[in-house]
Amino acid sequence: MADAAAAEFDIRCYMESLRPEIDAALDGVLQSGDALPPNLHAAMRHSVFAGGKRLRPLLAIAGCEACGSAAEVALPAACAVELIHTYSLIHDDLPAFDDEELRRGQPTCHTVFGEAVAILAGDALQALAFEILAQAAVSRGAATSWSAAGVEMARAAGSVGMCGGQTLDIEAAGAALELSDLRQLHAHKTGALLTAAVVSGGIVGGADDAAVAALRTYGDALGLAFQVVDDLLDVEGTAAELGKKPGGDAAREQPTFPALIGVAGSRAEAARLRDVAIAAVEVLDSSRSAPLVALAEYIVSRSY
Amino acid sequence: MADAAAAEFDIRCYMESLRPEIDAALDGVLQSGDALPPNLHAAMRHSVFAGGKRLRPLLAIAGCEACGSAAEVALPAACAVELIHTYSLIHDDLPAFDDEELRRGQPTCHTVFGEAVAILAGDALQALAFEILAQAAVSRGAATSWSAAGVEMARAAGSVGMCGGQTLDIEAAGAALELSDLRQLHAHKTGALLTAAVVSGGIVGGADDAAVAALRTYGDALGLAFQVVDDLLDVEGTAAELGKKPGGDAAREQPTFPALIGVAGSRAEAARLRDVAIAAVEVLDSSRSAPLVALAEYIVSRSY
Repeated sequence: MADAAAAEFDIRCYMESLRPEIDAALDGVLQSGDALPPNLHAAMRHSVFAGGKRLRPLLAIAGCEACGSAAEVALPAACAVELIHTYSLIHDDLPAFDDEELRRGQPTCHTVFGEAVAILAGDALQALAFEILAQAAVSRGAATSWSAAGVEMARAAGSVGMCGGQTLDIEAAGAALELSDLRQLHAHKTGALLTAAVVSGGIVGGADDAAVAALRTYGDALGLAFQVVDDLLDVEGTAAELGKKPGGDAAREQPTFPALIGVAGSRAEAARLRDVAIAAVEVLDSSRSAPLVALAEYIVSRSY
Repeated sequence: MADAAAAEFDIRCYMESLRPEIDAALDGVLQSGDALPPNLHAAMRHSVFAGGKRLRPLLAIAGCEACGSAAEVALPAACAVELIHTYSLIHDDLPAFDDEELRRGQPTCHTVFGEAVAILAGDALQALAFEILAQAAVSRGAATSWSAAGVEMARAAGSVGMCGGQTLDIEAAGAALELSDLRQLHAHKTGALLTAAVVSGGIVGGADDAAVAALRTYGDALGLAFQVVDDLLDVEGTAAELGKKPGGDAAREQPTFPALIGVAGSRAEAARLRDVAIAAVEVLDSSRSAPLVALAEYIVSRSY
């Protein structure tokens, strides 16, 4: 059933139709580039509007829709998760981390605004994400659901989620990791926030416990699939497609799935995880979960 | 009335009696130092337990008590504000900012754990602060009040609060600021979070609109008084009292109140702001607002 609905579902059209709405919402929550202090707000905007795919906002919206609510309901969660993701990229690109000059084909935040303002822009984006969630709890009703979404997001962003994964990643450079360690690293670094996106969208969209559990399984599998594909693209992609130089993982001696299980093994693993994700959301109404199914297909087949 | 109550009130005893409770609550919300990844959690604990005065938690608790609720009610807000404050110190001490090796007489986070882990420890402490507030909204009832406290705290931490003030501070180094600019810088950098502490404590303690307004006026005046005294101590204090070398502001060519209005003028300004703060909370029940009055006295008379 889900497969039939997904087969008819045009994921690119879905993504393109929601993108202006997501970008307008992000524009609305960010201060203008000339608000005091102008440099800080310009830095925040620079990175938020540097051309991301808005995958996490789409997952929040698709999770919400799969639980029977309108896309608009999830917009604060969609904005919050994208701001957290953007802040993590700003900090990840710093000289103390990956020291990247390009991200999504654009100069990185610290390259344009300096290291101190880039650190602060990341910090302020994280604060803004939680302001948006708390404000939704105050002004949209359903304060407990919005607060539960805030807990999801904060835990996923923090020391047992993304920041923890980032630490494991730093410590893994040059180390001989087992496959289970690599999975754990990525479950923290990338997976936790992807899961929080879809779960928090579901929660504010009215998910019951079974739906939350389904979305969590979906997110966890999808998050790992996303990273396996990322590693594959770093081996196989081109700079034009990626917006950055491929081969960065190997240059930094970062452990990757292709290095541990080969390119063919990684492709098979990505496909397996996609199927786990799709199977998990079969308990939801198939007419409403088509975007989630199609997003899982898209993430595994993407070329950038 | 308030003065009479405050005169009898032993602020040092109040601070010392609450400190173990605040520290136990902080200990309870932080992962243990051997939780995965151990380095990150050890770094978070290093900075949270590096000997702060817990002034912001005390303000949250005193704000809550002034509105008729028990200290315990405000503990999540007390923890959240201290975690945000601690993260800001970690980032402020980084080489890209003040490049400090000592803070409160202890080696700074990046000195012990390296720059990358210190940045992540700060990031994770901020996430944890908002997790605590959102969790309180979910599990303590009064979800809307806790969410409103979350909005206060997030706004105070973000680009129009602390991060904005920090940016203004960087840009002010070596610049000839007017007094109004210096006030604005500190209202953002230090004042916003102090105000958020006392206001959010009040909100979760049941403050009505008039009480929130009174606490906001109190916090704004106290925040500025705090910074004026900080600048005075940097001119007049000793390393033993401060836990860091005095004269740092002058060395970094940071504009200060003593530089703009003189030492005597700064003392008079601190006293005036203290009186504004104390007058603001006269609308509250004087038997309950004695800690707020005494904290204002303490902050202006402190020597470290």
